[in-house]
Amino acid sequence: METERQVYINGNLVPESEARISVFDMGFLYGVTLYESLRTFKHRWFAPDAHWTRLERSLRYAGLAGALTREAFLRILDTVLEANEHLTDPEDDLWGNIQVTPGRTRPMPLLGQEDTTPTILSYTCPLPYSAYVQAYTEGTHAVTARFRAPSHQSCDPRTKNRNRFPHFLAGRDARRWDPQAFALMLDPRGCVAEGAAANIFFVSDGVLYTPHARHVLAGVSRLTVMHLAQQLGVAVKEDDLTLYDAYNADEAFWTTSSYCVLPIARIDGRPLAGPCPGPLTRRLLDAWGDSVGVDIVGQARRFAR
Amino acid sequence: METERQVYINGNLVPESEARISVFDMGFLYGVTLYESLRTFKHRWFAPDAHWTRLERSLRYAGLAGALTREAFLRILDTVLEANEHLTDPEDDLWGNIQVTPGRTRPMPLLGQEDTTPTILSYTCPLPYSAYVQAYTEGTHAVTARFRAPSHQSCDPRTKNRNRFPHFLAGRDARRWDPQAFALMLDPRGCVAEGAAANIFFVSDGVLYTPHARHVLAGVSRLTVMHLAQQLGVAVKEDDLTLYDAYNADEAFWTTSSYCVLPIARIDGRPLAGPCPGPLTRRLLDAWGDSVGVDIVGQARRFAR
Amino acid sequence: METERQVYINGNLVPESEARISVFDMGFLYGVTLYESLRTFKHRWFAPDAHWTRLERSLRYAGLAGALTREAFLRILDTVLEANEHLTDPEDDLWGNIQVTPGRTRPMPLLGQEDTTPTILSYTCPLPYSAYVQAYTEGTHAVTARFRAPSHQSCDPRTKNRNRFPHFLAGRDARRWDPQAFALMLDPRGCVAEGAAANIFFVSDGVLYTPHARHVLAGVSRLTVMHLAQQLGVAVKEDDLTLYDAYNADEAFWTTSSYCVLPIARIDGRPLAGPCPGPLTRRLLDAWGDSVGVDIVGQARRFAR
Amino acid sequence: METERQVYINGNLVPESEARISVFDMGFLYGVTLYESLRTFKHRWFAPDAHWTRLERSLRYAGLAGALTREAFLRILDTVLEANEHLTDPEDDLWGNIQVTPGRTRPMPLLGQEDTTPTILSYTCPLPYSAYVQAYTEGTHAVTARFRAPSHQSCDPRTKNRNRFPHFLAGRDARRWDPQAFALMLDPRGCVAEGAAANIFFVSDGVLYTPHARHVLAGVSRLTVMHLAQQLGVAVKEDDLTLYDAYNADEAFWTTSSYCVLPIARIDGRPLAGPCPGPLTRRLLDAWGDSVGVDIVGQARRFAR
Amino acid sequence: METERQVYINGNLVPESEARISVFDMGFLYGVTLYESLRTFKHRWFAPDAHWTRLERSLRYAGLAGALTREAFLRILDTVLEANEHLTDPEDDLWGNIQVTPGRTRPMPLLGQEDTTPTILSYTCPLPYSAYVQAYTEGTHAVTARFRAPSHQSCDPRTKNRNRFPHFLAGRDARRWDPQAFALMLDPRGCVAEGAAANIFFVSDGVLYTPHARHVLAGVSRLTVMHLAQQLGVAVKEDDLTLYDAYNADEAFWTTSSYCVLPIARIDGRPLAGPCPGPLTRRLLDAWGDSVGVDIVGQARRFAR
Amino acid sequence: METERQVYINGNLVPESEARISVFDMGFLYGVTLYESLRTFKHRWFAPDAHWTRLERSLRYAGLAGALTREAFLRILDTVLEANEHLTDPEDDLWGNIQVTPGRTRPMPLLGQEDTTPTILSYTCPLPYSAYVQAYTEGTHAVTARFRAPSHQSCDPRTKNRNRFPHFLAGRDARRWDPQAFALMLDPRGCVAEGAAANIFFVSDGVLYTPHARHVLAGVSRLTVMHLAQQLGVAVKEDDLTLYDAYNADEAFWTTSSYCVLPIARIDGRPLAGPCPGPLTRRLLDAWGDSVGVDIVGQARRFAR
Repeated sequence: METERQVYINGNLVPESEARISVFDMGFLYGVTLYESLRTFKHRWFAPDAHWTRLERSLRYAGLAGALTREAFLRILDTVLEANEHLTDPEDDLWGNIQVTPGRTRPMPLLGQEDTTPTILSYTCPLPYSAYVQAYTEGTHAVTARFRAPSHQSCDPRTKNRNRFPHFLAGRDARRWDPQAFALMLDPRGCVAEGAAANIFFVSDGVLYTPHARHVLAGVSRLTVMHLAQQLGVAVKEDDLTLYDAYNADEAFWTTSSYCVLPIARIDGRPLAGPCPGPLTRRLLDAWGDSVGVDIVGQARRFAR
Repeated sequence: METERQVYINGNLVPESEARISVFDMGFLYGVTLYESLRTFKHRWFAPDAHWTRLERSLRYAGLAGALTREAFLRILDTVLEANEHLTDPEDDLWGNIQVTPGRTRPMPLLGQEDTTPTILSYTCPLPYSAYVQAYTEGTHAVTARFRAPSHQSCDPRTKNRNRFPHFLAGRDARRWDPQAFALMLDPRGCVAEGAAANIFFVSDGVLYTPHARHVLAGVSRLTVMHLAQQLGVAVKEDDLTLYDAYNADEAFWTTSSYCVLPIARIDGRPLAGPCPGPLTRRLLDAWGDSVGVDIVGQARRFAR
Repeated sequence: METERQVYINGNLVPESEARISVFDMGFLYGVTLYESLRTFKHRWFAPDAHWTRLERSLRYAGLAGALTREAFLRILDTVLEANEHLTDPEDDLWGNIQVTPGRTRPMPLLGQEDTTPTILSYTCPLPYSAYVQAYTEGTHAVTARFRAPSHQSCDPRTKNRNRFPHFLAGRDARRWDPQAFALMLDPRGCVAEGAAANIFFVSDGVLYTPHARHVLAGVSRLTVMHLAQQLGVAVKEDDLTLYDAYNADEAFWTTSSYCVLPIARIDGRPLAGPCPGPLTRRLLDAWGDSVGVDIVGQARRFAR
Repeated sequence: METERQVYINGNLVPESEARISVFDMGFLYGVTLYESLRTFKHRWFAPDAHWTRLERSLRYAGLAGALTREAFLRILDTVLEANEHLTDPEDDLWGNIQVTPGRTRPMPLLGQEDTTPTILSYTCPLPYSAYVQAYTEGTHAVTARFRAPSHQSCDPRTKNRNRFPHFLAGRDARRWDPQAFALMLDPRGCVAEGAAANIFFVSDGVLYTPHARHVLAGVSRLTVMHLAQQLGVAVKEDDLTLYDAYNADEAFWTTSSYCVLPIARIDGRPLAGPCPGPLTRRLLDAWGDSVGVDIVGQARRFAR
Repeated sequence: METERQVYINGNLVPESEARISVFDMGFLYGVTLYESLRTFKHRWFAPDAHWTRLERSLRYAGLAGALTREAFLRILDTVLEANEHLTDPEDDLWGNIQVTPGRTRPMPLLGQEDTTPTILSYTCPLPYSAYVQAYTEGTHAVTARFRAPSHQSCDPRTKNRNRFPHFLAGRDARRWDPQAFALMLDPRGCVAEGAAANIFFVSDGVLYTPHARHVLAGVSRLTVMHLAQQLGVAVKEDDLTLYDAYNADEAFWTTSSYCVLPIARIDGRPLAGPCPGPLTRRLLDAWGDSVGVDIVGQARRFAR
Repeated sequence: METERQVYINGNLVPESEARISVFDMGFLYGVTLYESLRTFKHRWFAPDAHWTRLERSLRYAGLAGALTREAFLRILDTVLEANEHLTDPEDDLWGNIQVTPGRTRPMPLLGQEDTTPTILSYTCPLPYSAYVQAYTEGTHAVTARFRAPSHQSCDPRTKNRNRFPHFLAGRDARRWDPQAFALMLDPRGCVAEGAAANIFFVSDGVLYTPHARHVLAGVSRLTVMHLAQQLGVAVKEDDLTLYDAYNADEAFWTTSSYCVLPIARIDGRPLAGPCPGPLTRRLLDAWGDSVGVDIVGQARRFAR
């Protein structure tokens, strides 16, 4: 058995250290990489169907509808899981990624490139617990970015793609102020959009608020939290939210495929009114853990390095 | 001497077919690649200083001010030229590219990546004459895209970067209508911005118009044409231009580093009023050729394959 | 009985070939014509009350509240129906139109015109089956326009009026690409608005979506489809929709007073994911036909010329 | 000789009282009428070439480039002048209009209309002195409209067309406040655009300001005033202007083809700071009169009824 | 007992005529005054808790979370009520106000000011019946302002603060047209926002509409009316509303803490379609009165001076 | 002679500690205070005429044209200077302020207030050297605000007024990151506008850039610098500038009436490329000092406490 992680590239498994793409790949040249990130619970991928639905839509939006089938998507995810899970403690879990690009082009930017064989790649890695395990109890500092999330008039934000320069800039800026901060991005109208790699939720007067899916990357974790809230009898509203909503929230938290739910303690240097983590934040994280049979925070603490 | 083109990657020259970057490179993961494209005339790079000035600004905007020095920039360009020019006819010329990314990250999107050694890569390739040689006499068809150029509020369009999903979508859409069409992009306000990989100029009542540098990738070729026009005594105006200006232009043309100046015959299926190529378009292309001692169109015809 | 169609103009019936308005009519001079289009089923006007409600609002918005009463509206519609229905097969139906303008002005644009007697005109014509009968089975090609629907800040789009230059431009542009295409217009924010003369619906995950009435001409056919869907137990959502929603729809269709429901097969050259016509599209068209006792598609096929 | 004015319609001269267009003309149905308004000085049309240039651009924008030639344009204007000038005192002058529509369509809105013979019509009428003669000395009251001028994203404002519902609404609203008021329209950004049928100028610190041509109907009278100002050694700036500029102007005036230059005394009920008419306003009107050999105000006073 | 009204300033009660703040108070220097206005019914403050909730959010938004506690807020309101109610007839009621500013600064604008002791002030006054009592039966004239309500990108409109220059300008402009008019403000998108000191409601087809709380000062009276409507079984919708909705409303009314509900008879000179006050307007005002045991209109008539 | 500074209020001089305005003053209630800030050089006011011109325009915009005359403006400034200059070292200078509000209202917000006697107040104070003297050599840190400068659609930014809540929020936020930081505000379009109490300039390739006066408070110091630059033969351009321009500037500096010219060393944590203070920044500050015969930096150092 391999002792190095294996990466799937166009039908082959190659060691992580040799996992490369051509410098003429359109994913690299134009940021045209459609992808999904997901994690396992008990070594099984979480919500692969929801991820496929979104990837299929991303591909169709990009005019690459035929690049991947549902069957291939699921098979490739299983292939990388099988090839790598022996490197992960049975009580620990993995994070994974699958990516599709239009493939190689002739190396001139946007002039005359022809449709080629898409590039499909997929890999797993350990969950990056050390980046967030402390925040389960202390909360994160959300710092509003100067760089706005892209407009749906340029490229619909629901299309999960690698065209993420503004998110990169936002993250760097947030860490210039506070090395532990997470960036919070506004949409082109100045409404709250999303984190640099996560969705955001607010609790106010017992209601759970999150921006409309239309203006953000509509996360599978975001949907999971909305469903869990409904099961807990908590009202959920998608709405246009501003910094007024953010600064006045009773609780706030991020959702993404790795940490699931991560509390926010401060926004732009202003502590939120309620305790951190807030009671509803806790309940949602517990409910998620119950639904998958994993103590999410406990696992993170145990395996954090 | 090598019979395969050599690509510069972080200090090494590797054959083109083996030129790859890690799948964990932030250039690939977030579209954060700052780059310059340029060509030679008589096997010498054209306007390398102007390209450096722009790249330096792109790097500073991205918070990567220290990733490359002017000296290294010029030396790397010379290195790839030297390593590859024997593959090019002495009367022919080369096109080249130099790219900078923040380097590898841990493979989780935007969570906890650390500053690493930037990736620097550079390559040359033949000028893609066959993609445009016919258009010197027949003109191109410019098709206005449904996808808008990104807003300076997300990422300033003057920063030449690989975050070009909207441009990719625009190009595909243009070719869905007319396989020979070039995409014309509007800015977020609906004003004319630029081509998918070129700047645009219009001639109206003897004046040369082009969009403000502020809303477009401010091309070195664009500046060259502006200087040539001034030498020819032609007034040049940067302005906010709309489709009314486009449809009513007497002449129109693209500028980019490969073909220099390429006439436009039709916009959105509407033939322009004047002859194609228009008289000023011709004069500018001739003046450019004279200034570098190359018959630009003749060279393209001779070496087109 | 007349063998030529009769047009109602200010109290008189005149033959269609002589139906003219003064070149000084403000409807012609400023596009200030408020109107309604409707059709018959079994030779009775469909939903005349809903049409009156909308026309009354258009008139009030235009400051012409007193130009027409509900009674006159219904009487005039009956007059033109009575005068023309003998020219239509009893199993066929008619399309009709009623228009109100502020009347004649002194012939100077917008300087000193005085309130005059409004111009009221109404006519019928055969349903233009040949323009759409094939599309019931093959679907139409929707092509997104470069010209945006007007803003409510200029003139509220819910006001059905003849100020339709952008729609005219959009239609021409769509047919430049594909002579059979129908134009799809975006609103000033770049969200999906409406066709050049129809509303649009999308089906996604079993839910029926259509743009908010606020940004479109709120069609009576649109309302009819929303009511039919509710009767069929299908959820209907008015929302802000983008090209992402359009390209990823399972089904899509137009609604307007002539063809009622017309399937869309492709949008901007991209085939939709599902079959065309889609199952819900069919059910809605059937339900409409059932509710009025007319086989809508069968009638179109039989009487198409 | 005819004692009634004659209107030119598609090659024929018909008496004004019988001058009608089909109710199925696309000019009426969609507001798609491209036109020019102009006046005579000493019974000769003023600046017909400048009017042709603009009309040609309007036609090209509308996709109707071939509907009219320069020669036909000039000949038709001469025809209506010749046919009507005997009704005008030799010392008086005429106002005229020429209009082009795409012609008749089948009477269904925007569905399947075919290109037909364009409708060309032209007429003259007396200058409407009574509507403005008093304002030469007293100034007008400009009232900012609630309805914005249309965006260039819908239909470029430089295209002189009959799609003027917002202008109609604006005029009515202005007269609701003050029966003598003229409407002042803002552009979609809230900057000053134009009157309902005129351009606007402001004088501030001796400089003449007017909105950029890009956001307004770029009037021939506007150009005339700009040229006259240059001859008088007065600096002219096209700029983005707001209500702050308007309320703080030393002088302000309208320009249009009938009254040429008409002073503004008050804006939104606020008297301007300087005298009305202001000294530069007077000088420009005098210079215009001198250039055409007509005492413009004197003529208006003499022939006002 | 005092015969002059007493104003609470930072712990002291001072006579109204001597109630002053330092000219260096930041409330005066930067418009940074967070406040609440409310009235009594039967000499008891109406909805003090709802007012505290809003003030707390305003303070947190302004970064002044610690400036006032709920207990102090309630105690101060009681203090001014107690000190002044003997000046008010037992059957009459009072209006009151409580304001918080960041306190005094060094007198240089925005340079180096330090956090100081906040200024807290509170006062009562007679209800200004004469300004509105007639409008209960005749309705008001709402005049749409040229000055837009501020954007949430500058300062969230839900933050009740004294930065109300646009509202001041709007009010003056409305009264320039009609001395009795109330100003109606649009939001930055041109949608209906609010009055200069009130929220607005429309009734259309039996449904009660009001702008989303997100774009307006979310009034406590507005919430009260929404709750009363629900109790009456009337559907209430928060929506984006335009002048089309305003001009076509069956009924319209203002809400604010003094007059509670005040009917609108005309908007921009256009009479509304229905009677004034409308039946639902009356029912809501009656229901409010019933809920507090006061004949609101009767009281206003009796005590108007 | 008084040992306490004297403040001018409506015709009287009162000691600073007793300088108060009524809590019912509309300047306090609605932020409607129009004002000017200026300083002396050698105990004479700098550019009082330029300040009057701007104040006059602010007053006219606010509908308060008659509240103050030029003569009264100059006389009041002289009065406060005379009353206070004995408290200032002959080699030191003073800063001053003059403010106009609409006066007292009845204490209900925006309901029925009547025009009253305007409040005029004026005061002087020591120049706050300690807040900026170090920055002459070290430069300031400019931090881009999350709160946008208000739109000209709400209240034109050229109107110098006390409606400065967004500026207050911006300043607080900047100091949350870096206690020494100065806030930099963006306009509603996301372009660079101004500091919280200063204008901003950039130097790039030897050209001096500053935002258009239209989107900022058009400072008298800003004008002074533009004139000085012209005298030094330096090109000055007013333009739309973005963060790309800011981050890539060779030099940057603030201008305001107290410190005149103050260099910027870092923007959003990014050091500028050139030395700080930059050579042109130094030359401009020196030229200003020369023109008034004061060593501006030397004076600040000598009298800083």
